[in-house]
Amino acid sequence: MATTGHQQANQKQPPPAKAPSGHATTAPGTTPERLFNAFNAHAQTAAIKTAVELEIFTAIAEGKTSPSAVAQRCDIAERGARILCDFLTIHGFLTKTGANYGLAPDSAMFLDRHSPAYVGSAIDFMLSERVMEAHAKLTDAVRSGRSALGEAALEPENPIWLRFAEAMAPLTMMPAQGAAAELRRSGEVHKVLDIAAGHGIYGIAVAQQNPKAQVYAADWKNVLTVAQRNAQKAGVADRYHLLPGSAFESDFGHDYDLVLIPNFLHHFDLPTCARFLNKVHGALAADGRAAVIEFVPNADRVTPPSAAGFSLTMLAMTPSGDAYTFAELEKMAKDAGFTRVEISPVELGVNRLVVAYK
Amino acid sequence: MATTGHQQANQKQPPPAKAPSGHATTAPGTTPERLFNAFNAHAQTAAIKTAVELEIFTAIAEGKTSPSAVAQRCDIAERGARILCDFLTIHGFLTKTGANYGLAPDSAMFLDRHSPAYVGSAIDFMLSERVMEAHAKLTDAVRSGRSALGEAALEPENPIWLRFAEAMAPLTMMPAQGAAAELRRSGEVHKVLDIAAGHGIYGIAVAQQNPKAQVYAADWKNVLTVAQRNAQKAGVADRYHLLPGSAFESDFGHDYDLVLIPNFLHHFDLPTCARFLNKVHGALAADGRAAVIEFVPNADRVTPPSAAGFSLTMLAMTPSGDAYTFAELEKMAKDAGFTRVEISPVELGVNRLVVAYK
Repeated sequence: MATTGHQQANQKQPPPAKAPSGHATTAPGTTPERLFNAFNAHAQTAAIKTAVELEIFTAIAEGKTSPSAVAQRCDIAERGARILCDFLTIHGFLTKTGANYGLAPDSAMFLDRHSPAYVGSAIDFMLSERVMEAHAKLTDAVRSGRSALGEAALEPENPIWLRFAEAMAPLTMMPAQGAAAELRRSGEVHKVLDIAAGHGIYGIAVAQQNPKAQVYAADWKNVLTVAQRNAQKAGVADRYHLLPGSAFESDFGHDYDLVLIPNFLHHFDLPTCARFLNKVHGALAADGRAAVIEFVPNADRVTPPSAAGFSLTMLAMTPSGDAYTFAELEKMAKDAGFTRVEISPVELGVNRLVVAYK
Repeated sequence: MATTGHQQANQKQPPPAKAPSGHATTAPGTTPERLFNAFNAHAQTAAIKTAVELEIFTAIAEGKTSPSAVAQRCDIAERGARILCDFLTIHGFLTKTGANYGLAPDSAMFLDRHSPAYVGSAIDFMLSERVMEAHAKLTDAVRSGRSALGEAALEPENPIWLRFAEAMAPLTMMPAQGAAAELRRSGEVHKVLDIAAGHGIYGIAVAQQNPKAQVYAADWKNVLTVAQRNAQKAGVADRYHLLPGSAFESDFGHDYDLVLIPNFLHHFDLPTCARFLNKVHGALAADGRAAVIEFVPNADRVTPPSAAGFSLTMLAMTPSGDAYTFAELEKMAKDAGFTRVEISPVELGVNRLVVAYK
């Protein structure tokens, strides 16, 4: 029988806390095991990063399912293969039957290099040295209320955004097609601006679903080489135009019927976002829309977990960014002159689509 | 109503994998969210470490439950307090009601500095720079099958063991009392040896539960200062004796009726453990017992999760250590000359008690 230790791990967790205030509610039988596991959570990151780097998931997908076969395929020690694969089984990313490993459905779809939905490259950005350093200095960030790394990432042509564009494109394919389909329901668009396009995947998806659309991609010049390459691959290069420079300073032109703002606002504070949205407002045609794709926590700021948890990433990585609630996004858009702001019920992975009407 | 985002996080995970082999079993509706969360697992470590360092749990236990009250008590930014506490709520370590936070039962018992069961100091060892470096180099360790750090930790008087002794004592109190009670059931002991005593908590618990016992603590000289201090605090210093030096080389003496070997064997390979147990065998009286306290995974090596997962820690941190199954512990003890080996049904936190009879 296949074993997934992950289930047992969950069963060991104590029931959710019910304490309504700060008073300690110690309970007999309470153990420190869950805290011990949280102290060790970094090992899960290390294990999955190592497995992606060494192509463990790809090896198992190829039928190399024993420690010795994995070791031979990946050019690693058999002891290393056995211990790493056991750890990935404990956490539910692999299954184990006897001494042979299998892939969990999400590992098979997203971490096998031969899968069209492979997203393993995301670790190059999500677990870059910069990200790890920022989290190593989280205590300083909580003390000061801002990243301990300074503002370097927001400077012109920082190579981190080139890495973002190259690493994060695969993870964005499905959400981008979903956003483009949802936006298409309100009618075809003809002139589209994609802000901080990065890999360009959002604007390219809109180009694919709107055959007459001309798409203008704004980002640092070095990053736009990635977007242009992706536009060529997608067969929309003849309708794809580059606007290199700072999104805050460059001239966008005007008469856009759609401006895409995917995962951009969370880097800045609310007044800066409002000022930026005012610039977007000016670039839109009279019946134009701005489409904000963002991590949008509920008003409680603790659900849904992935969107709400992104706030800590912004504390660690930026001077004053955040994961904004819908009420905050609505306020900044209205402060910028938009008349109506709506959140789409469609879920784009861990993101949501918020549309602001001019 | 109190919200714990943790529950939702679990609900979002896909069902456990059923694939019996390496064949990919992609399923419609499979999302990368769980993998994305695993990439980000290190943030959970960073958040709980930061919260312990800044005494966030202690502040909330004192009734400072709003972001501004936490910020004032902990001398941190209110934005930092709010985002960190939200993140801890998402992962179930805090609760949130309106804008006020509360403690989960295990956070209240183990992470409030005023609690007698406080274990926050464990991060000084479990998340030391050495541990973080070892996990940052996990890919190298899996490749070579041994820690990328070399053998330095096993050298004489390495300060890491002083830190271990100081940081890990609180986490050990309950398991040590449990082990001593279980061992006491077979009769009172009089001469006890505690191997690599560290904080000394296991030997001290035996001394407390056996009023006539003389306890000999073996460890590096620098580490034994911590054990001696703990013996004084526990009121057993007059029956507590120090045996400084390497456990492999020093003269233990003889006629012990109990030798404690708590969390020591996992640092070494199986033949080394067998040789060491043979030395212990020689130091025991004719009816003596060796009590091995260890992480003991089941034969499948993936359950129970915390014990089985410890194998990765040993891959990252040691040249050839491991979390040994009962069959392996039994083999090394029998190779060393012991006649009978039993595992106690008692659970000592994430450890188990294995008794080898001479």
